Amino acid sequence: ANPMRETARAPRVREIMNKKVVSITEDEEIRTAAKKLLKGETNHLPVLDKNGVLVGIVTTYDISKAVVGDGKHRLVREIMTKRVFKATPEEPVDIAAQKLERNNISALPVVDTENRVVGILSAIDLGKLFGGRWQR
Amino acid sequence: ANPMRETARAPRVREIMNKKVVSITEDEEIRTAAKKLLKGETNHLPVLDKNGVLVGIVTTYDISKAVVGDGKHRLVREIMTKRVFKATPEEPVDIAAQKLERNNISALPVVDTENRVVGILSAIDLGKLFGGRWQR
Ligand SMILES: C[S@@+](CC[C@H](N)C(=O)[O-])C[C@H]1O[C@@H](n2cnc3c(N)ncnc32)[C@H](O)[C@@H]1O
Repeated sequence: ANPMRETARAPRVREIMNKKVVSITEDEEIRTAAKKLLKGETNHLPVLDKNGVLVGIVTTYDISKAVVGDGKHRLVREIMTKRVFKATPEEPVDIAAQKLERNNISALPVVDTENRVVGILSAIDLGKLFGGRWQR
Repeated sequence: ANPMRETARAPRVREIMNKKVVSITEDEEIRTAAKKLLKGETNHLPVLDKNGVLVGIVTTYDISKAVVGDGKHRLVREIMTKRVFKATPEEPVDIAAQKLERNNISALPVVDTENRVVGILSAIDLGKLFGGRWQR
C-alpha cells in the first residue's frame, strides 16, 4: 500500500551479496568450468565475454547435462544458460528473493549498469539474513 | 534472551517445506539419478535404503564430480554424501537456515522420528518466505 515505506525497510542486495565472485569466460573449456565448480566454493559461475560483460551462467546442472548427454560439447558457450536472471546492488532483497523463487533458481549475479558482475546473491545468503531476523 | 517467545514467533519447517519429494534408492544407477535431477524439478535427491530410511543425498554436484572424474563409479551409493544434514517438521526455520549457511548447502531433507523423508526444505523456499515478510 505504501511502497516508499516498504523499500525503506527492506535491506538491499548490496548488503548481503557475496563480493568474491568466481567467473569464467565463454571460450574456456567445459572441463575448466567443472574444475572451478567442483572446488565447491560456488555452484554458480557467471560467464563473461572478452570485455568482462555478463553473457551467461553455468552450474553443475549444466555440466551434468553436458556429460551425461551426448558429450559432443567442448566450450562453455555451448552449454551456458544465456538468458540470465540478475539483480542490481540497490535492489531490495525481497525483489531478488521473488526472482529466485519464480524462476526456480538459487543465485543471481549482481551487475552494474554496464552489465559487469560486482557480486553474486544466493538463496543461502538470503537464508542467512532470514535466520538473523528471527534470532534478534 | 527469551527462547519461548522467539520460538513462538518463528515459522516451522513444516509450513514452508516442499512435501512432494523426488527420491532414489542407494542401489540404483548413477545415470538414473542424473535423469531425475536433469528433469529439473529438484536439485537434491534424498537417497533411501530398502526400508525407506534416509541414508544419503545426491545433487548435480556429485554427478558432475563422478563423470568429470575417473568415471569408475556406477551406483548411487558410491557417490552420495552419507553424512546428511537434515531438519524436522517442527524445527523453527531460522535454525534450518543456519544449517544451510554453515554447511554451504542449499537444501535439507525433512525427516520424521524414524528417519523417513516427509519433505524437503530448500534455500529457495526460505527466500519465498523471506520475500513475503517485506511485502506485507
Ligand atoms: C558442498 S555443496 C557445494 C555446492 C553448492 N554450494 C550447493 O549448495 O549445492 C555440494 C555437496 O553438498 C552435498 N549436500 C547437499 N545437500 C546436503 C545435505 N542436506 N546434507 C549433506 N550434504 C549435502 C551434496 O551431496 C554435494 O556433495
